[in-house]
Amino acid sequence: MCRFGYYPEAGFRELSAECFGELKRDTRLPLSGVEAAYCGNFGIWGMLGGQGGTPGQLVLHEAGVDRIPVMRIENGCASGSTAFFQGVRAVAAGFHDFVLVLGIEKMSGAPTGEVLDAMAGGADYELEGTMGATFPGIFGIVANRHAFEYGTTRKQMAMVSKKNHDHAALNDKAMFRKRMSIEDILSSRVIADPLCLFECSPFSDGAAAVLLGPSEIAGRYCDRPVRVLSTNLVTGQYGEKQSITSFLPTSWAAEKSYREAGVGPDDIDLAEVHDCFSIAEILHYEDLGFCLKGEGGPFVETGGASFGGKVVVNPSGGLLSKGHPLGATGVAQVVELVEQLRGGCGRRQVENARIGLAHCLGGFFHGDVASAVVSILAKN
Amino acid sequence: MCRFGYYPEAGFRELSAECFGELKRDTRLPLSGVEAAYCGNFGIWGMLGGQGGTPGQLVLHEAGVDRIPVMRIENGCASGSTAFFQGVRAVAAGFHDFVLVLGIEKMSGAPTGEVLDAMAGGADYELEGTMGATFPGIFGIVANRHAFEYGTTRKQMAMVSKKNHDHAALNDKAMFRKRMSIEDILSSRVIADPLCLFECSPFSDGAAAVLLGPSEIAGRYCDRPVRVLSTNLVTGQYGEKQSITSFLPTSWAAEKSYREAGVGPDDIDLAEVHDCFSIAEILHYEDLGFCLKGEGGPFVETGGASFGGKVVVNPSGGLLSKGHPLGATGVAQVVELVEQLRGGCGRRQVENARIGLAHCLGGFFHGDVASAVVSILAKN
Repeated sequence: MCRFGYYPEAGFRELSAECFGELKRDTRLPLSGVEAAYCGNFGIWGMLGGQGGTPGQLVLHEAGVDRIPVMRIENGCASGSTAFFQGVRAVAAGFHDFVLVLGIEKMSGAPTGEVLDAMAGGADYELEGTMGATFPGIFGIVANRHAFEYGTTRKQMAMVSKKNHDHAALNDKAMFRKRMSIEDILSSRVIADPLCLFECSPFSDGAAAVLLGPSEIAGRYCDRPVRVLSTNLVTGQYGEKQSITSFLPTSWAAEKSYREAGVGPDDIDLAEVHDCFSIAEILHYEDLGFCLKGEGGPFVETGGASFGGKVVVNPSGGLLSKGHPLGATGVAQVVELVEQLRGGCGRRQVENARIGLAHCLGGFFHGDVASAVVSILAKN
Repeated sequence: MCRFGYYPEAGFRELSAECFGELKRDTRLPLSGVEAAYCGNFGIWGMLGGQGGTPGQLVLHEAGVDRIPVMRIENGCASGSTAFFQGVRAVAAGFHDFVLVLGIEKMSGAPTGEVLDAMAGGADYELEGTMGATFPGIFGIVANRHAFEYGTTRKQMAMVSKKNHDHAALNDKAMFRKRMSIEDILSSRVIADPLCLFECSPFSDGAAAVLLGPSEIAGRYCDRPVRVLSTNLVTGQYGEKQSITSFLPTSWAAEKSYREAGVGPDDIDLAEVHDCFSIAEILHYEDLGFCLKGEGGPFVETGGASFGGKVVVNPSGGLLSKGHPLGATGVAQVVELVEQLRGGCGRRQVENARIGLAHCLGGFFHGDVASAVVSILAKN
């Protein structure tokens, strides 16, 4: 993956170049040996007046990938994860041996309001986005409700952001590498009550890629392959009476992925989860089973989600600090798991990392429809 | 499918409602029995300031589809065909029994220039679109070159449009149902030399859907199922020296699909092909093997591509006359094949239709990269 950041001058070609370079160094398979490619991309750049489609076609032929199926997969903020899900399925079904999954997004170069408006086009733009219900507003409501139902404090929410900034300080691919105190975070300006600026993931440009192949032969092409135990996508409707303090599709996708992998929440050593806002990560602890419902606040406050705790959540820095180029995010999560399970993360290495989980969320309608992807990977 | 047209007041919900209604009448499977859904959508509406993502999530939960994988598939103008390709694969691999493929696009309500600009975002926007190389210009160049290399006449190109308008006049789902003379077509205003207005497919709104399932059990849920023999997507690079008068990905995808289906071009009774411009259909005759290279002009002029000819091409009216809501197009082609193979097309019924072919093209870069999908269906 490239270092996530704000690169107004870069297009898809420039953003993806570093990925292809790293991929070539990491595998003995030439990119011309790739048999299918799935490109996760939300499409923000197109909505801002730039390249609006076929990002995979655009960049892959320059990388030497040719005469194979290439398509873009979009699923809101879960676009990259969904591309990964499709790539794994293509190999698992035996359609192809080697599949490339690329995630890419370009969000820089336009005023904040325009980017937010474009992102709202990944929720229900017609009925909600046009009324001002963009993502920060939606998650502000969720935060207030979680505080009301479970007593979750502002400090606990800010702890998520502090922790992830601490992690990102050790990751040279992260957009923000500066540590922050709880006070820094809570004194930053309010974006959507109660959420402050440093509790919101940034607009970012970036790209990430992974190469998938059958486990039986992966070792021939790569010195340190990692195993995909399971991956599931669930798009679901919570039902009108369901509280907004739980994203049920996360639980449904997690349940399937735990079952297929033969593991449970207690077996997860590290997790990359969709911390688009501080409060979101607290919900995910609960929905993924890392703690009981309503206990996400105390869980992070007591160190359960960092080094030395029950499960290291977002060792990369997460969306909040590593950055959130929408379509690249889900693929970058997998890149982090791979590096951690290989033991190559240096100062942010999770000790004895054996099993990792990646989780993304996309879309959000009427407080009750979203997609979630949960993937579980293991050390080989 | 809904009747394609220009519906500035309709959103994705309104456009898809008729599809779901027809689907419910045509099958005994409730939509809640659908196990995965692929939504083909280019994303024009988002680029024009409307719903920019997750169209499947948006409309499917209202149709009663829930707790399943849903995603959007984008591949330029081949988005709908690529969604179909993915849907067929999901069933073929055994991941799901019943898969819904929805194609949808909304293009109305914005000035022509803005829509063209958005569409150019499905080709190479950065290096070509910004220079004015939108699709009409690209295909105008192709037309001039085909005329230069093979002596293809303006009358032959106009014949494609006349034929497709004749067909559409018999199709109550078509956007344009008015017959046109060669003179009407050639005297309409020039859009991109030499192509005239009535040789260019229109901007359209529309949606189409098909339900896929294993052939062994399809008969339980549907009185008149149709068989998918093969479907292939190839994204490819022609190589710098290749002429622009052939879209090689079409030939590559066709070759694979013919081989897998165990049929050849001579076995095809009808074909729905990507006639985005009159000249395009002439290239497709050649690339799909319906006639020799360079003979597409005489082929259509002598009636080879209409009723009573070798193969009835675009009995629905094609993109030129039925309309071209980008993401819906590839799925609507399959809808036409299904209706024809069932023998339910009334006055535009192809006699003894046994085998049909659908073809879409998407993306176009440097005159040498594009995606093509070719699917072959047979009467059950």
